[in-house]
Amino acid sequence: MKMIFHIFFIISLVSSISFASVQDFCVADPKGPQSPSGYSCKNPDQVTENDFAFSGLGKAGNTSNIIKAAVTPAFAPAFAGTNGLGVSLARLDLAGGGVIPLHTHPGASEALVVIQGTICAGFISSANKVYLKTLNRGDSMIFPQGLLHFQLNSGKGPALAFVAFGSSSPGLQILPFALFANDLPSELVEATTFLSDEEVKKLKGVLGGTN
Amino acid sequence: MKMIFHIFFIISLVSSISFASVQDFCVADPKGPQSPSGYSCKNPDQVTENDFAFSGLGKAGNTSNIIKAAVTPAFAPAFAGTNGLGVSLARLDLAGGGVIPLHTHPGASEALVVIQGTICAGFISSANKVYLKTLNRGDSMIFPQGLLHFQLNSGKGPALAFVAFGSSSPGLQILPFALFANDLPSELVEATTFLSDEEVKKLKGVLGGTN
Amino acid sequence: MKMIFHIFFIISLVSSISFASVQDFCVADPKGPQSPSGYSCKNPDQVTENDFAFSGLGKAGNTSNIIKAAVTPAFAPAFAGTNGLGVSLARLDLAGGGVIPLHTHPGASEALVVIQGTICAGFISSANKVYLKTLNRGDSMIFPQGLLHFQLNSGKGPALAFVAFGSSSPGLQILPFALFANDLPSELVEATTFLSDEEVKKLKGVLGGTN
Amino acid sequence: MKMIFHIFFIISLVSSISFASVQDFCVADPKGPQSPSGYSCKNPDQVTENDFAFSGLGKAGNTSNIIKAAVTPAFAPAFAGTNGLGVSLARLDLAGGGVIPLHTHPGASEALVVIQGTICAGFISSANKVYLKTLNRGDSMIFPQGLLHFQLNSGKGPALAFVAFGSSSPGLQILPFALFANDLPSELVEATTFLSDEEVKKLKGVLGGTN
Amino acid sequence: MKMIFHIFFIISLVSSISFASVQDFCVADPKGPQSPSGYSCKNPDQVTENDFAFSGLGKAGNTSNIIKAAVTPAFAPAFAGTNGLGVSLARLDLAGGGVIPLHTHPGASEALVVIQGTICAGFISSANKVYLKTLNRGDSMIFPQGLLHFQLNSGKGPALAFVAFGSSSPGLQILPFALFANDLPSELVEATTFLSDEEVKKLKGVLGGTN
Amino acid sequence: MKMIFHIFFIISLVSSISFASVQDFCVADPKGPQSPSGYSCKNPDQVTENDFAFSGLGKAGNTSNIIKAAVTPAFAPAFAGTNGLGVSLARLDLAGGGVIPLHTHPGASEALVVIQGTICAGFISSANKVYLKTLNRGDSMIFPQGLLHFQLNSGKGPALAFVAFGSSSPGLQILPFALFANDLPSELVEATTFLSDEEVKKLKGVLGGTN
Repeated sequence: MKMIFHIFFIISLVSSISFASVQDFCVADPKGPQSPSGYSCKNPDQVTENDFAFSGLGKAGNTSNIIKAAVTPAFAPAFAGTNGLGVSLARLDLAGGGVIPLHTHPGASEALVVIQGTICAGFISSANKVYLKTLNRGDSMIFPQGLLHFQLNSGKGPALAFVAFGSSSPGLQILPFALFANDLPSELVEATTFLSDEEVKKLKGVLGGTN
Repeated sequence: MKMIFHIFFIISLVSSISFASVQDFCVADPKGPQSPSGYSCKNPDQVTENDFAFSGLGKAGNTSNIIKAAVTPAFAPAFAGTNGLGVSLARLDLAGGGVIPLHTHPGASEALVVIQGTICAGFISSANKVYLKTLNRGDSMIFPQGLLHFQLNSGKGPALAFVAFGSSSPGLQILPFALFANDLPSELVEATTFLSDEEVKKLKGVLGGTN
Repeated sequence: MKMIFHIFFIISLVSSISFASVQDFCVADPKGPQSPSGYSCKNPDQVTENDFAFSGLGKAGNTSNIIKAAVTPAFAPAFAGTNGLGVSLARLDLAGGGVIPLHTHPGASEALVVIQGTICAGFISSANKVYLKTLNRGDSMIFPQGLLHFQLNSGKGPALAFVAFGSSSPGLQILPFALFANDLPSELVEATTFLSDEEVKKLKGVLGGTN
Repeated sequence: MKMIFHIFFIISLVSSISFASVQDFCVADPKGPQSPSGYSCKNPDQVTENDFAFSGLGKAGNTSNIIKAAVTPAFAPAFAGTNGLGVSLARLDLAGGGVIPLHTHPGASEALVVIQGTICAGFISSANKVYLKTLNRGDSMIFPQGLLHFQLNSGKGPALAFVAFGSSSPGLQILPFALFANDLPSELVEATTFLSDEEVKKLKGVLGGTN
Repeated sequence: MKMIFHIFFIISLVSSISFASVQDFCVADPKGPQSPSGYSCKNPDQVTENDFAFSGLGKAGNTSNIIKAAVTPAFAPAFAGTNGLGVSLARLDLAGGGVIPLHTHPGASEALVVIQGTICAGFISSANKVYLKTLNRGDSMIFPQGLLHFQLNSGKGPALAFVAFGSSSPGLQILPFALFANDLPSELVEATTFLSDEEVKKLKGVLGGTN
Repeated sequence: MKMIFHIFFIISLVSSISFASVQDFCVADPKGPQSPSGYSCKNPDQVTENDFAFSGLGKAGNTSNIIKAAVTPAFAPAFAGTNGLGVSLARLDLAGGGVIPLHTHPGASEALVVIQGTICAGFISSANKVYLKTLNRGDSMIFPQGLLHFQLNSGKGPALAFVAFGSSSPGLQILPFALFANDLPSELVEATTFLSDEEVKKLKGVLGGTN
């Protein structure tokens, strides 16, 4: 068998391949316009292996804060290669007593795996039912899209977990910040949560909210 | 021109049409198994025009309750014809002083149009920014998927609005119920919201929560 | 409990939030390039509450026309905040005897709710079956994506309805305009509809078509 | 290198593979319940190569009918292997003077390639603009989802084309049948199309419609 | 009946139509930015019927090459009108003894129909099961998304097939080229395929690979 | 403020909540029929917190095998709660010298994070370009859907990684098994890969293939 490629085949092959690049990947170009499907794509000719790797999850987040915890996201465009590929990651560090407050991801479900320590995690369904688990090293849990959930260090030492999302832009709405760390008038917070004026004003004070 | 159809064409036509029924619509059969895409489909031969209509939005909801408001949903399977078609409806009745508390729809964005009265509505973004509008008769507003939002009667008389969702099963998680109307232990509510023990226990008492 | 946030937490929080904006919403920027997923996103820093509200549905459409009816759409980009969020609205005004002619929405299913009057509405399935309902105030109906449907004022006074779509760009193809209000040659209209030359030419004359 | 597989690896491998079957394919089982995503899946253990093949497109459709044309679909469940895979096929036979009347596919766009003869094809956009092409052997054309389109033999001999759809259940609504081959009352057809009573009744007579 | 359109209706009609263009189609503009959903849209005002047609499948590919075969794709942006519409085409020419080597389409399933000759085609599932068919003129076959498959001329004369994909950018990864026509180091190819060093180096030589 | 809920509000609230369950989650019931969108949903009343947790990733896979590696998947239905939620997990154990051979996931992109050791990972694009990275503890990498990729222990001790997928059923096609561990006739393997008869038969012998 003669192993010589005819020039015309090469041309046809190359043309089919150059068309294909758009769906192989779309590395985020944060300077281009965004669309409902995500960030603009970086020119494929300038894409390198570094666009598909991310080293930011290797370092523990700083947990010297009120929640004794830190979330380090690896979403688009920081982790540029994930753009449009339907999956992304984050790292959770919880010092002793640390907690990731109640929050939602409007754009994706979350899967968590515990690397170190013990985490009490839970979510609340639309039917107001609570699903609560104590997770040890190697245990995993799934949190359905858009539902309130939390993670809390229920062990003695620090805890570490990695979480994955079914979107490159899952979003993150942290409940106490949404309620108390902005200019939503206190009377509206109270009317829409049943919380007392005293409680709302106290937490607005703590978390930097106004009005 | 002779207008006589050949029998074979009729046969070929009918066969193509019988294949087509599955994607025209999939009226919910709540007795069949559910899948991630929704309810099972009712046998198309038994589907009637009544499966595509719903009269439940014609009557005002009862607003003689703590929030002086009522939500009447027209989702699948109650409004069976919407199953899998990517759109559904609900009716909001707000008596004077009425409020739909902060809530999210995990599965869809919402568009609202005011039919009567004046409604103050708002949502909070992932960036904790508040988008607030006072809406009068005929005004409409969009609430992005999964974000906390509320509607409040800010006029003098009763208010009425219809809302639409981009899913036949948008879901509904009402914040104060999710926090205070179930068995999520008080210490977990407190640790994950920064609310005080006193406030949490008071509202659990009011809303029927335990623990 | 000391309520002092460590600066590093704030930084990590802010970075996660700035990534999140793309999926919270994508307000249409009609001057940017469009993509198959919709309009380009307006810079989130310039988005205001007004981008999520729309007042155009508050005014009755002018029904002094041949169909004694008017459709007022609230799609992207006019209702800019709906872009990419999978839901939009429109208003239907039908004077006495008014009719929205047979039409399709290629991109979404439609849900209708009657606000005033009586509307006879119907759609035709791929199997050529007709689903017909007379709808009064508060009644709703669903029209599956892409199927021919119509709404007709079958009451005595004017009728008003709001409709919702499961897309921010549902599209609208009105049958008599598609057939008779363009330059599609009469002989092609005739060959592909079985209508007579006389009928086609008469309606082309009425609706402004040529050829 | 020792080529001996450890039994535990085999077990782990096999378990990962048995999970995978659901997304490789979902061959239609027309006897099971349908869902918005399509037909139920045949038991993978009973799936054979024959489920992925279809011989029905090999035979010319019978064109001895009023339109001198035939459409032979290869959709789910007839072509069972296509179920849920997002692509399907059909064959168009057009005798001399044959025409596929104006029609839409509510569930998918269509791509056509001419195998024999000359076909005049066109579609009408939401903006009522007509896109018309004369296609010869080897020419292809795309018809966007949900828009009215037609194919007409504009050559001298018979014409043959294959068409592809971006769905296993694209649907097919043929305009003259939707208007005139059912029990939609004549006065409703007339009011919603502007056609004359005489024309409507004549075509109802020809195509078998009533009322 | 007076057939005079009121100017206001025309205005309302036109405005609804101009909104609609984005979802009717999005003809690829290869000079604009790409997004995860595909190419930017060409200005609708400059779109013509030629954007929806493609003549490149009408000519046999050159099969004077090592595989005695040619693939001629009609994907976006070459076939610009397919962009975002979820379907595209390609032509397969196989001279006597010709073969399309094992390959995958990462972004879509494929449906094939044989126009001329006899083709032996097959795919391999995640469970390593082989589905193999000999296809004659008019036979069709479906290859599920992402699975390895091939087509081989098993007849005496040349063979021709058209294939369709459920995406405008299905992608194409040809196995022997992926393994042997690039700079992936030989030791990595060997370690990840179990192939011998001799075999890998021989084929790298033939197909132009290095390292 | 009187905190007494009216019974009618409770009823309306409960009804809206019971509708919502289908989209909150759809825990896999492997005994029910499958659909293109995944497994049937377990009755929500019987769902417990255990359906959302999985302990199988906590134990190292057995790496005493030819590849000195193990993949432990946490897909649906094993990890039942992931069904339809668009994300799943797996664990990779690589002993010294271990390798996960070239493979694809037809149904999802993959994101990997290294927990222990050093991994050389890479993927090959449709354009035959190789993207290769050496990843240390905490480093992450993304592998686009459907493209060939591998992971290889390039450190001294054992390596551990967790991987996430943007689907609850990503699938897994391992190249050497697809080629050499089934009954695909040797001459077809050779014709479609360019491998020699000697090499194919040797590897079929090693991996258990026939023909």
